[in-house]
Amino acid sequence: MPSCAAQAASRPQSGFTTFRFPCKKWISLVNVMTTVQYYPESVLSQQVKTLLLQAGAQEKDAEATTCALLHASRIGVDSHGVRLIGHYLRLLGTGGINPRPSTTFKRTGPATGQLNADGGLAHPAAYRAMNEAILLAREAGIGAVGVHHSSHFGAAGAYVLEAARQGMIGLIMSNSDATVSLFGGAKPFHGTNPIAMAAPVKNSDPWLMDIATSSIPFNRVKLYRSLGLPLPVGVAADSSGLSTQDAMAASFLQPLGGEGFGFKGAALAGLVTVLAGALTGAELDPVMTGTDEEQNFLKRQNVGHFAIAIDPEKFIGSVAYDLAMRKYLDLLRNSPSADGQHPVMAPGDREWQEARRRAVNGIPVDAETRRILGL
Amino acid sequence: MPSCAAQAASRPQSGFTTFRFPCKKWISLVNVMTTVQYYPESVLSQQVKTLLLQAGAQEKDAEATTCALLHASRIGVDSHGVRLIGHYLRLLGTGGINPRPSTTFKRTGPATGQLNADGGLAHPAAYRAMNEAILLAREAGIGAVGVHHSSHFGAAGAYVLEAARQGMIGLIMSNSDATVSLFGGAKPFHGTNPIAMAAPVKNSDPWLMDIATSSIPFNRVKLYRSLGLPLPVGVAADSSGLSTQDAMAASFLQPLGGEGFGFKGAALAGLVTVLAGALTGAELDPVMTGTDEEQNFLKRQNVGHFAIAIDPEKFIGSVAYDLAMRKYLDLLRNSPSADGQHPVMAPGDREWQEARRRAVNGIPVDAETRRILGL
Repeated sequence: MPSCAAQAASRPQSGFTTFRFPCKKWISLVNVMTTVQYYPESVLSQQVKTLLLQAGAQEKDAEATTCALLHASRIGVDSHGVRLIGHYLRLLGTGGINPRPSTTFKRTGPATGQLNADGGLAHPAAYRAMNEAILLAREAGIGAVGVHHSSHFGAAGAYVLEAARQGMIGLIMSNSDATVSLFGGAKPFHGTNPIAMAAPVKNSDPWLMDIATSSIPFNRVKLYRSLGLPLPVGVAADSSGLSTQDAMAASFLQPLGGEGFGFKGAALAGLVTVLAGALTGAELDPVMTGTDEEQNFLKRQNVGHFAIAIDPEKFIGSVAYDLAMRKYLDLLRNSPSADGQHPVMAPGDREWQEARRRAVNGIPVDAETRRILGL
Repeated sequence: MPSCAAQAASRPQSGFTTFRFPCKKWISLVNVMTTVQYYPESVLSQQVKTLLLQAGAQEKDAEATTCALLHASRIGVDSHGVRLIGHYLRLLGTGGINPRPSTTFKRTGPATGQLNADGGLAHPAAYRAMNEAILLAREAGIGAVGVHHSSHFGAAGAYVLEAARQGMIGLIMSNSDATVSLFGGAKPFHGTNPIAMAAPVKNSDPWLMDIATSSIPFNRVKLYRSLGLPLPVGVAADSSGLSTQDAMAASFLQPLGGEGFGFKGAALAGLVTVLAGALTGAELDPVMTGTDEEQNFLKRQNVGHFAIAIDPEKFIGSVAYDLAMRKYLDLLRNSPSADGQHPVMAPGDREWQEARRRAVNGIPVDAETRRILGL
């Protein structure tokens, strides 16, 4: 089971929050769209878990989903944090997510396995897959687990951190229903198809990458609409498939790399579809049940994930690996920045900074989520 | 050993070549920078191998390097094709590459191994690593091999095709000396750090992705200089680290994702450095011996690669996987394009098309390479 110890305890306070925009700009927005209030992680954790149990989830599943949502809230990825609780509660209520799945894991080789998530919450399935991959890697040096009949697993980084906590490099990816065009495509084809990797760093926070293969999530389009701002170039298209900066006209996303190099983002999205979809037996992104269908017609998604764990001991060895990671991060963090003001960062550095801030200040929660959580 | 059967035989002809530019534009350039002539693969293959042997390479190493160079030339990736022969011959001559390496492979677990390439040509080391990973995956379901003390391995796609040819999904990546900045960084830090994956497609060409984690290679900057054209936005920086479209002022590359989303490309470059560098015991990109040093001071690089093979039989099963890949590619190739003119493509489609053209027309070779090849 994941390590979910609450990290913060401070009293709620109203205030402001920050949103990360492209181009390294952080724009402080006082009470953007809603008034946020700050809560300690333990309070949110308890409320989220209680509501999941009330919605019919099993104890260990509620715990894993709570863990994953709080991971995202803890490090500042609010789009995938406790804000999503309403979504999961709705799906548990309609049967779009199976509250009592018979999850089965089958070991298929010395280093491989397949997990059937039986339409349940994706978070326990993804934690389980990563933990089985870790067990396989302890024996075989590398382990891989495919997951099918799963659902939306939130922030991919939550699962790979489990590997890093256990001294392993962890990789996970998930396909999803179509929201992102092909390079030059006229309609959505791939999901946002995230790829996450965590690499352990001795006596320090792990190196943590967690990226979608689109430039932005669709939530960002909605935010730009609310703010009346133009979108960055090459991140979204109108309904005919033409790239647009008009947030109101944006109909779907375009792959990472934009107008010039979106073939690379589309290839990465495809890599995820091949490994997490075609290889595992999950549905393929372009024909996957959409979230609306799922909610309205009780039709479950068959999302796929693919988890890999790698034991550094079986390559250059853990001692040499630890030294190399230390050297790499020291070189990186001491590398000069172009503007001389914003230091360069390793993947995860911004998130660990935010986690330290939130451990003191609490986690911001918007009004609608507070209503759902009964806070 | 790789499968290197020559695929084309037609007589040399002079003519024109095409260069792929960003933004889906293909610009035909008559005799760009040089007059090209066309040769059948078998002629080039024989000349390349003979020269490598004359430079002191061992028979099987010369064969593997020839294979890898011809792979790139065959599918139209001329930047990594036979054009590179002069580079490898120079390094074999100066000792920058060890002509007689004692390559050693050590199995470290049921699914893992480490290969010491002993400073030799990277191509035989990368083929060997992929083939060992395939053997491991046959037993364990997945296999991974780390390579250290290697050198520049050319086109990553060559090696993963070996996996696909044997019914496996293959992944390979390589770190390299610093040519690409961090996101917002003032100097080169990562290499171009390519990631390639091939997935077998029954009775058809494999799905083939082979991408650098920068938007463009530095060769492209040189091409824009020659043509007097401005660079695309966000692909290169001047010596102070500021993004520039002036090809003459461009000093190094910027990561995939450009000014807004380059943190994603930098994270992917980092993923490669962690797996192919820190994990394998290779040198880290920012402190790796540069190609100039290598040539001038006989100082060898310690480049790292990381190869993974995955057996579909151990996940959803080969029959279901084959059906899923067929369905995926049918859906993809029948998906509408935004401009209604350029059909959307799967990774590799453009390259397989070019390979069919070159099988008929031959492979274009520039004057300087012809001189080196004695053609």
